[in-house]
Amino acid sequence: MSTATRYPTGATQTAQKIGIVGAGQLGRMLALAGYPLGLKFVFLDKSADAPGGQVGAIIPGEFSDAQKLGELAAAVDVLTYDVENVPVEALGDIPRHKLFLPPVAALATGQDRLAEKNLFRELRIPTPKFRTVGSMPELEQAIQEIGYPAVLKTRRLGYDGRGQRLISSPAELGSAFNALGGVPLILEEFIAFEREVSVIGVRNRSGETAFYPIAENLHSDGILRHTIAPCVDKQLQKPAESYARRVMHHFDYAGVLTIEFFVRQGRLIANETAPRVHNSGHWTIEGAVTSQFENHLRGILDLPLGDTSALGYAAMVNFIGELPPPATVLAIAGAHYHDYGKQPRPGRKLGHATLVCKTRKQLLAQLRKLPGAVRT
Amino acid sequence: MSTATRYPTGATQTAQKIGIVGAGQLGRMLALAGYPLGLKFVFLDKSADAPGGQVGAIIPGEFSDAQKLGELAAAVDVLTYDVENVPVEALGDIPRHKLFLPPVAALATGQDRLAEKNLFRELRIPTPKFRTVGSMPELEQAIQEIGYPAVLKTRRLGYDGRGQRLISSPAELGSAFNALGGVPLILEEFIAFEREVSVIGVRNRSGETAFYPIAENLHSDGILRHTIAPCVDKQLQKPAESYARRVMHHFDYAGVLTIEFFVRQGRLIANETAPRVHNSGHWTIEGAVTSQFENHLRGILDLPLGDTSALGYAAMVNFIGELPPPATVLAIAGAHYHDYGKQPRPGRKLGHATLVCKTRKQLLAQLRKLPGAVRT
Repeated sequence: MSTATRYPTGATQTAQKIGIVGAGQLGRMLALAGYPLGLKFVFLDKSADAPGGQVGAIIPGEFSDAQKLGELAAAVDVLTYDVENVPVEALGDIPRHKLFLPPVAALATGQDRLAEKNLFRELRIPTPKFRTVGSMPELEQAIQEIGYPAVLKTRRLGYDGRGQRLISSPAELGSAFNALGGVPLILEEFIAFEREVSVIGVRNRSGETAFYPIAENLHSDGILRHTIAPCVDKQLQKPAESYARRVMHHFDYAGVLTIEFFVRQGRLIANETAPRVHNSGHWTIEGAVTSQFENHLRGILDLPLGDTSALGYAAMVNFIGELPPPATVLAIAGAHYHDYGKQPRPGRKLGHATLVCKTRKQLLAQLRKLPGAVRT
Repeated sequence: MSTATRYPTGATQTAQKIGIVGAGQLGRMLALAGYPLGLKFVFLDKSADAPGGQVGAIIPGEFSDAQKLGELAAAVDVLTYDVENVPVEALGDIPRHKLFLPPVAALATGQDRLAEKNLFRELRIPTPKFRTVGSMPELEQAIQEIGYPAVLKTRRLGYDGRGQRLISSPAELGSAFNALGGVPLILEEFIAFEREVSVIGVRNRSGETAFYPIAENLHSDGILRHTIAPCVDKQLQKPAESYARRVMHHFDYAGVLTIEFFVRQGRLIANETAPRVHNSGHWTIEGAVTSQFENHLRGILDLPLGDTSALGYAAMVNFIGELPPPATVLAIAGAHYHDYGKQPRPGRKLGHATLVCKTRKQLLAQLRKLPGAVRT
């Protein structure tokens, strides 16, 4: 598939106005990274006081509103998104006459765990064993093939919910199915992982690629708590890049792509993709030569990609539900503070801090001082 | 002078809205640095499409309009400025009931070459010999004391013009006086300098100070062309910091202060001060741990100051009159691009690029590739 046929004509390298579907913190940080490049930003978001609205214009509307999506498309040169749950059908034929990047196919695949797992398999990227489940008999058959424990998940993210249930014994089959039932499901092998890592790659429309050092992530309650980069397992860098490169090549990708992996017995097992800038890449703002946000924009505008090297060792800690006072964070040597300008709410990502140090040892020592840091 | 008496009551460390008099590129870069700290920005500028207007609200008006200044003050928690020519008299009593930083006294001193030179002398900071000149007889007397060559300058900047004339012989006295006459003047010793350097210091309201490595600046036609930091003359760092510290202490300063120096026979001779972030500090965005813009905000909000260490060797090149295409600049390893979002006009600063390299040798090699770079 050549670039010439793939992208609508009229797309220029010097596009000045970027439309972003979603004005969350990712969109806000994209805009902050893009102003120095001379870009302007318009967002589509249902909330007029979303974080992006403080740094760009917001067209108020739902991501599923085809008319609003059309309005955004008409106002800009290039479209991108900061959310994964943009309904592909609502986009209609927008991507045929306006640059919409990363490509719709990557967006659609990231929305369906089955498509994602099939893609991993097709591209020979290791992934947990999986079976589709549409009924209780199918679940019973699937668990026989996969074994206990296993994880039953809804296939689609976003609007359909992010539900998942761990199934450890036959007694839990029925309750898990009923809790998630009524929508297409997938049963996945449970991976007893040693750690979770992510790779962030970027590709421009001309096919140039670059990869950040892989990062180690700590989740709890389904929310990313902290990221440390580069990950100590240096030997995972090459396979992670190879897997990300395969996915990007497959989609003739442009922009940032994230793949999250489990690490088991020192090997990568792909869990999911995100066709966008990612929370596990926030450390790149101060911790890498070029941030993931700037590189995403360079990628979709077909500019030369920026250096993805780390400037030392970085840690990113999410502030969830409440923000510590800036003075507390900024008093820590090497700390940077990010307030997304949101109203506090339990479980909501309100901001983050990044620590950058010369050595990993210094980093771990400083990390202990940071409010909200998880003890490791 | 204690901080308690100096600053109006009601000033809080967690102020959320910053008013900036002037919405030029400096104001724009202040806002871009301030959003991650959770701040919001309102500008006062006569031009509704000034660079800052793309990243914050603009109150349209002249800096000399007391009513508009009052409107800005009423809308924000803390006032600062990105221009030196805010008429102090137009501010009226605003600084008595609203935080206005850096202090008005520093602003006023920076606007008058005589006050500035007297301050240098008072604080025992080496500065060129100078005499005030109000008439032709005074000029004749002054040149006898200072000798040829000497530079005749208008005392006040901004609205009164930035005119200056080099006087190399008695025959030039009359024409120089007539060209600049009618306003208060100052005659200064001409310094045959080896190089020009600047120090950028920052102080918070609690008195904490920090200093960036001094930078070497190249001017032509009165406009800064490029900056290289850190400067090779490491032994100048200590005296530069000492001089900046004296000025900041004198004013019970908060925010960023710049002092430009000539270097003659390896010694610093202070030329002028700027009570604000400075073009010669743009390299700190990517070339230092914390940028001058973020540190200015930390200073005026009385937050702990950020690390001012350089991340290697940096060069900043101004784009004057025209911008090179971003792709040309971004293809250079270590290059970052800044487009201020201005309409092109001859002699106008439209943007800059920063190069960051591990060694000075690499930096100078990369610098040669950059469009607009002056050959050194």
